[in-house]
Amino acid sequence: MRKVLAINRYTGIDQRSSIGTPDHPLVNQPEAPTITEIHNIFMTDGVPLAVSAARKAMQEAQVEPSQITHMVSTTCTNSANPGYDHFVARELGLAPNLEKTLLHGVGCSGGLATLRTAANLCLGHAMRGLPARILCVALEVSTSMVRSELDSINKLQETRIGVALFSDCASAVVLSNGIGEQPQPLYELLGWQHHVVPETEEDLGFDVDPVGWKVVLSPRVPKLTESVLQPTYNALLSSAPKLPPGYAAAPDFDWAMHPGGATILTGAERAMKITPEHMRASYDTYINHGNSSSATIFSVLDRLRSKDMDAVAPGGQPKEYIVGCAFGPGITVEMCLLKRNMELRGGMMVTGIQTPPETESEASSRSGDAEADEDRYLEAQNSGSSRSSSRAEESAPARQQEAAERIHQTQDQSFITEALNDLELD
Amino acid sequence: MRKVLAINRYTGIDQRSSIGTPDHPLVNQPEAPTITEIHNIFMTDGVPLAVSAARKAMQEAQVEPSQITHMVSTTCTNSANPGYDHFVARELGLAPNLEKTLLHGVGCSGGLATLRTAANLCLGHAMRGLPARILCVALEVSTSMVRSELDSINKLQETRIGVALFSDCASAVVLSNGIGEQPQPLYELLGWQHHVVPETEEDLGFDVDPVGWKVVLSPRVPKLTESVLQPTYNALLSSAPKLPPGYAAAPDFDWAMHPGGATILTGAERAMKITPEHMRASYDTYINHGNSSSATIFSVLDRLRSKDMDAVAPGGQPKEYIVGCAFGPGITVEMCLLKRNMELRGGMMVTGIQTPPETESEASSRSGDAEADEDRYLEAQNSGSSRSSSRAEESAPARQQEAAERIHQTQDQSFITEALNDLELD
Repeated sequence: MRKVLAINRYTGIDQRSSIGTPDHPLVNQPEAPTITEIHNIFMTDGVPLAVSAARKAMQEAQVEPSQITHMVSTTCTNSANPGYDHFVARELGLAPNLEKTLLHGVGCSGGLATLRTAANLCLGHAMRGLPARILCVALEVSTSMVRSELDSINKLQETRIGVALFSDCASAVVLSNGIGEQPQPLYELLGWQHHVVPETEEDLGFDVDPVGWKVVLSPRVPKLTESVLQPTYNALLSSAPKLPPGYAAAPDFDWAMHPGGATILTGAERAMKITPEHMRASYDTYINHGNSSSATIFSVLDRLRSKDMDAVAPGGQPKEYIVGCAFGPGITVEMCLLKRNMELRGGMMVTGIQTPPETESEASSRSGDAEADEDRYLEAQNSGSSRSSSRAEESAPARQQEAAERIHQTQDQSFITEALNDLELD
Repeated sequence: MRKVLAINRYTGIDQRSSIGTPDHPLVNQPEAPTITEIHNIFMTDGVPLAVSAARKAMQEAQVEPSQITHMVSTTCTNSANPGYDHFVARELGLAPNLEKTLLHGVGCSGGLATLRTAANLCLGHAMRGLPARILCVALEVSTSMVRSELDSINKLQETRIGVALFSDCASAVVLSNGIGEQPQPLYELLGWQHHVVPETEEDLGFDVDPVGWKVVLSPRVPKLTESVLQPTYNALLSSAPKLPPGYAAAPDFDWAMHPGGATILTGAERAMKITPEHMRASYDTYINHGNSSSATIFSVLDRLRSKDMDAVAPGGQPKEYIVGCAFGPGITVEMCLLKRNMELRGGMMVTGIQTPPETESEASSRSGDAEADEDRYLEAQNSGSSRSSSRAEESAPARQQEAAERIHQTQDQSFITEALNDLELD
């Protein structure tokens, strides 16, 4: 237990989001909840979170339920038939002939895997001249498994980092293939890469157990993830459309890295010669919410488009092109290239004729209501365009305020580096 | 136990395929195996079955591992990260940047769901002018859960039909988008429909449990599946390319129905005014192997292209156009329209220029070696073409022989009807 508490102090996470509190009955029973009970709480507490995330995404994307053509979802914390996507679709009133795809086995890389799959489905519909509006949903409820992790520590002296790392989240994105009317996309998805690092199956996993799923995480993981970044990045840039001058090396881009753990982020810095400020939204999400597995990457992309994150961009200049990246079991790396719509910066929705992207920092203010803060864009689209991601978890306004203050206090842009002093895990 | 034995007698299943025998250590422990042990046997015994099925499919499709661009897989009897598809891909030596999609939550409809998803991905690649060769794999190992079902009967007086219904199987298909060189497809996939029956979530399911997954099956299921067949069929035909004269009503087609249970098949007969002979491959697979969930539909489609099945077609005339159909949790119906390549009948591979489909029965013999019997075609393709399915499970030649004899003895084509006397379950 001392070891776990020590790990917990050094994760770099301030707060983790959960569907419950430490006094939740499920984690205070004499026995750890079974996978059946974990399933039940996933359905009662998780599914409404996903519905809420999906509604926000669809609202921001200005897409009606009847316009959604496909749904691509993922989770690694539930295994049920029908899948949870079925219940989300029903609650949203999506069409009964909606094509649903629920991805499994992809763990933390699941968010970008839904995006990649949805992009391919968008292209498939484009081939037939049909509009595609694909709702991507990621939902993870993992804090219900903390109780069994405590049992493992107590009874088996097994310590796993998951107990100090994982949090709950639902996030959603609408991906469009650009056929038919739509508002301006928030991001465009320009390309993607999916790659498996050979002979690493035993290094990273999340395997089923009578009390849920158990993390497998070898000490080799940070090294392995570091080593695959550069070749995957090279492949991504080679496969993508030609970029404007000034976009070639990794630090030319902003980075939406899945914060799998602090060492994943610091490893990416070393491997790609980028700074924490390039990954500011990854650090911010990680510090304030923890690692919500597949659902986190959309939170990061959403956070990246906020004004307070722009304010701490390297050189005060947020980038128009962004590399998204997540690692999952396999070890799998999912990487994508996004173009951010700079006209929609700071949460201000610009409609009308598109003008060239601005490069100077934008001082325009937004209305500032708490609700608007919850809205997230993410847009992504390749041979189409897409809009809107949303993280459903209700952050306390006080926490939001605190995070914002911390960022504003650190005009020297070193807040992340400072916050993460002595963060290395081994 | 008496009730379960009575159900077992009336399923209409002669034999079920299993990765083990009743004296397998896993099901003879003092306690029922946990979901972790079930996972382990899935990996050690199931994955090689899937590899074998995939190899046969690729061989028949004349596709090298390096040519496979995507893999779309499914299972409802495993939940692991990385997913089992990862290990199948590794064993086959597929490319590390192969795009993998593992479908979850779709139960028995998973096989046709992989086909639909793969078809959409084929179109996506066609949009970019790229060849697609998509390996679809379905793997189910459910007989490892029989032991816990016996516990449920013994301790809780709970009887579920799964214990008398389910079997183990891996099957595989290669779906092509027709770009690039390829042999003649065995089937072409002309269209597909996916539909959810509203308000039926509680009627059919397969939910996770510390000892595996537990079947939910309400008495309403046969009625519900019956009711949705005609509207889905109508939608399928409306969306498909124009068919030649003589293909309009359901009995004009051959039917590859997933044999979820005897009442599903008899219900389809009533609803669609088709005979058991239209579904001869469904009955044959069901009688000789049981219900292997998602993996069964490819076995049925494979069986349907065999000479002994052609011999018992209605009027002795196998059809060129085939409706594939499976029901899954949701309740979901997956339906597809296939065109069989009549030149490749009887397992004889015809290369060269395509001639018009034959309609008269073909007397050509094949070499008759046992190995060839194991080879299965399935081809399916929409804006592309596809080849080859394969069922890995090793049927004993004696059993094959027996089934064949039974069929040959019943030249009046009523063998199925006779075999299924008094089969109705309630």
